Amino acid sequence: MRIIIVGGVAAGMSAAARARRHDETAEIIVLERGSEVSFANCGLPYHVSGEIADASSLLVQTPESLRAALNLDVRIHHEVTAIDTAARTVSVTSPAGAEELSYDALVLAPGASALVPPLPGIDSPRVRTLRTVGDAVALRERVTSGAARAVVLGAGFIGLEAAEALRHAGLSVDVVELAPHVLPPLEQELATLVTEELQALGIRVIDGIGAASVEHADDADTVVLTDGTRLAADIIVMSVGVRPDTAFIAAAGIDTVRGAIVVDDRGRTSADGVWAAGDATASVDAITGAVRPVALAGPANRAGRLIADDIFGMEASRRITQPLGTAIVRVGDLTAAMTGANRMALDAAGIAYRTLHLHPNQHAGYFPGASAIHLIVHIAAGDGRLLGAQAVGTEGVDKRIDVIATAIRAGFAATDLIDLDLAYSPPYGNAKDAVNLVGMVAENVLNGRLSLWYAAEAETIGESALILDVRTPAEFATGHLPGALNIAHTELRDRIDEVHQAAAGRPVRVLCAAGVRANIAHRILVGNGFDSASLSGGIQTLRHWFGADIERVLTSEGAYA
Amino acid sequence: MRIIIVGGVAAGMSAAARARRHDETAEIIVLERGSEVSFANCGLPYHVSGEIADASSLLVQTPESLRAALNLDVRIHHEVTAIDTAARTVSVTSPAGAEELSYDALVLAPGASALVPPLPGIDSPRVRTLRTVGDAVALRERVTSGAARAVVLGAGFIGLEAAEALRHAGLSVDVVELAPHVLPPLEQELATLVTEELQALGIRVIDGIGAASVEHADDADTVVLTDGTRLAADIIVMSVGVRPDTAFIAAAGIDTVRGAIVVDDRGRTSADGVWAAGDATASVDAITGAVRPVALAGPANRAGRLIADDIFGMEASRRITQPLGTAIVRVGDLTAAMTGANRMALDAAGIAYRTLHLHPNQHAGYFPGASAIHLIVHIAAGDGRLLGAQAVGTEGVDKRIDVIATAIRAGFAATDLIDLDLAYSPPYGNAKDAVNLVGMVAENVLNGRLSLWYAAEAETIGESALILDVRTPAEFATGHLPGALNIAHTELRDRIDEVHQAAAGRPVRVLCAAGVRANIAHRILVGNGFDSASLSGGIQTLRHWFGADIERVLTSEGAYA
Repeated sequence: MRIIIVGGVAAGMSAAARARRHDETAEIIVLERGSEVSFANCGLPYHVSGEIADASSLLVQTPESLRAALNLDVRIHHEVTAIDTAARTVSVTSPAGAEELSYDALVLAPGASALVPPLPGIDSPRVRTLRTVGDAVALRERVTSGAARAVVLGAGFIGLEAAEALRHAGLSVDVVELAPHVLPPLEQELATLVTEELQALGIRVIDGIGAASVEHADDADTVVLTDGTRLAADIIVMSVGVRPDTAFIAAAGIDTVRGAIVVDDRGRTSADGVWAAGDATASVDAITGAVRPVALAGPANRAGRLIADDIFGMEASRRITQPLGTAIVRVGDLTAAMTGANRMALDAAGIAYRTLHLHPNQHAGYFPGASAIHLIVHIAAGDGRLLGAQAVGTEGVDKRIDVIATAIRAGFAATDLIDLDLAYSPPYGNAKDAVNLVGMVAENVLNGRLSLWYAAEAETIGESALILDVRTPAEFATGHLPGALNIAHTELRDRIDEVHQAAAGRPVRVLCAAGVRANIAHRILVGNGFDSASLSGGIQTLRHWFGADIERVLTSEGAYA
Repeated sequence: MRIIIVGGVAAGMSAAARARRHDETAEIIVLERGSEVSFANCGLPYHVSGEIADASSLLVQTPESLRAALNLDVRIHHEVTAIDTAARTVSVTSPAGAEELSYDALVLAPGASALVPPLPGIDSPRVRTLRTVGDAVALRERVTSGAARAVVLGAGFIGLEAAEALRHAGLSVDVVELAPHVLPPLEQELATLVTEELQALGIRVIDGIGAASVEHADDADTVVLTDGTRLAADIIVMSVGVRPDTAFIAAAGIDTVRGAIVVDDRGRTSADGVWAAGDATASVDAITGAVRPVALAGPANRAGRLIADDIFGMEASRRITQPLGTAIVRVGDLTAAMTGANRMALDAAGIAYRTLHLHPNQHAGYFPGASAIHLIVHIAAGDGRLLGAQAVGTEGVDKRIDVIATAIRAGFAATDLIDLDLAYSPPYGNAKDAVNLVGMVAENVLNGRLSLWYAAEAETIGESALILDVRTPAEFATGHLPGALNIAHTELRDRIDEVHQAAAGRPVRVLCAAGVRANIAHRILVGNGFDSASLSGGIQTLRHWFGADIERVLTSEGAYA
């Protein structure tokens, strides 16, 4: 039995290792186009920054170590150029020349390449992607040999990691993002926090604008943006996305969709005896059903493992699961993480949903070091099923997103989060953990006990409703919506007549700092017959929604502090 | 409508707050025997240590703040002495005298008291429990006014927190635990890590021995242990457990079991119009079905909330869930956490199970600061259902236990953990997270591809099997089981004949440092026809199992390093 695996990083190497565990005698050949296998691609930015000093520590395995431990035949600098699925052969070119290899089972895990848009001047030697250990080493060399200015094109996960790494290494850094905000999959009201953190690190953020061209000169390049802005650069990092490496696969008649290999839930392609996994394959999104490549290491590893099982007829009942797209990035002191669908994906899929905003502490408020987790959760409008969650904060973000990702995988409704028995003591959480609170708020929203209004309505809501700000006068004075009536929530019962007079039959839209006091006030208002709603996430979310534009929205006039 | 709530901390105050949100007009009276309501009982040790400098920050709410925000009638120093469930009245004593109050709905949340065993001299003024803000303030005062020596009786969660707090404050501390090891709910092979951490903090650990008496003298007390050991003490903290405060409840004819109030899954007691929640109630364990009080804040809060729903006929479909007993404690730089059942509970319930030991890193090994999470997972022998998990480590322990607690709540089999999409980037995890790895190992065990042997067998296994140690010779030389054959896993295929000769038909029991290499070797051995098994958790778990006794088990003789 000969298994040929094309691509020796996450998915390919997982398949190879698992295949050996199933069969001591199989011949397992791994063909890797590049010069490294099984390397830590997610660790590359941290070598650029110098946090991982030795690039060799990014090489988790070598062909030699894989031969010794798993008896794998790993061949680097071997590129597959053609597949004959009928004859079960692959054509391979290598420094030794061209050859043909036959296979019993073929696993395609070629991965994806960094997208390089065809801009004038983009072939400058100062332009670099960050996909291989060679890329990281080259960038690190430039960083340590005098480069002073970097421009990062694309502010996705890798772009932000690259930007921070270059800044960490002492360079001045501009980040350019075509989308309206950095980290485009993150919701607007969380992305502003990331932008502020980048700026606090000394990184210039330019969003909503793309690059038009690169002008090369001996001393430095210039990145020219579509609005004419000119950015000098000793290093230009391209991180605008990736594209599956599948030209030779489509040419072999194996089905692809928009360049991604089509596979079933056992990793089988349209050709007998050919499996595929990893960044080059199309996945069906678990929430929206959208079909697209998901370039994440975890799902790639697991799919590779299951393919080996399928080749040997093992674990016949297990299937490759649809990905949730759980992802995380460290930006300065912040962590930003997400799982499931965001607003854009839900809107595109036509799924009706409600959005909750919470700002719970990561641990007991009375315990030193408490800090807020800014948390957004989307739930299905009907049954309250969990659709997606995102969070930004300094501590405990990864834990909450992982718990919610697990709950989504379980098919939980948001209200099921109420009953999770999470580990509590003051250094770690709260008796009502952030995740439990999501469930409690969701239950109130789904059952109509809590009505929400949203930051996006802030500039117009005053035209048709009384805005009631239930913070203290001192808080109110720091900035409030124009025309808002200020009655602290503790005084509301005694001053309910003032609300009647000011509302004059209009609805009341109540708000506080984070939503907690406004929710109490909302129940008092409802109990007194008002049409009431509470601002989701309070003034905190309002500030995050508008970001640098918040001065336009809030006023401190009319405050009686 | 008048609701009377007995007990104003976690369960009681949750019920009161929720009731107000349901009804602006209800009369809600909270009767609290003590002098504080809604205080942070889990935060008490951190005031003793001085980490929480101001005891008032432990008072989350006061009667005044609860009146202002929620219009609650909170009466401290009010003790309920009798209940007439037919007349729907309670008898109350307070500094103002005795009175009778009628109710429409009664919620019993009296909590539990610290157990004080009837030892001679236990009434010494130097003996103190740690259950109230008053206790914490008193201990802090003694700590800051010259107390130098403390004895903590009972090394459960509160005992360990108290011990560390007192040590943190500069006292010499002895911890005495009657059970064979500290933190009795923790498995032996994790508890030794906690013992070592306590010792590293300078705390003396005395386990397997109880206290016989306390001898009081003007200058210092002496705690006398059952083996005659005498421990001088300026402070003695009693933390041997708690007992529900239910004498007045049983006297009213409300059903109790071993002192705990019997409730159904809506919190209803055996008496009409009477609900109960919190530490005074009996719960049905979600895994084992055992009935006992679970003194945890999270379940108490949630049960209180659901009782308010039931009183008002809301959320009729929701039920109080059976607790998993998820718990966590910080000890020095370590975190120890658990969820679900441990060996003792599973054995008592007669549930057949398999145990897995893993030592994965909390984040990418190549990223600075990587450290091991020592993880134990019990799975059902048949269907692989998750039954319980425990972990000890310096980082990321809480996250993994919370994810597994969520998976248990979902009814997941261990193999479902393979497919969890957890947030991965190098500072936060691994592409195959610790939790995913549990699933992968479980799958191999359940399907027979991986056979395990256990540390408990280490001292006898050599009598009937060849012990094969597949670590490097240098590792082998640092300590190995007597008579073990040492062949590094990378050489095993070439030296398989040596194994045949040494085994001479006997089974082979293979081991390495943590289990990873031994699992590879196991597959090679099986592929070569051997009866093989791999040591669960490797030498690391072996060392943790035997703790200070490890020198008896390992030898460094016969090593060819």
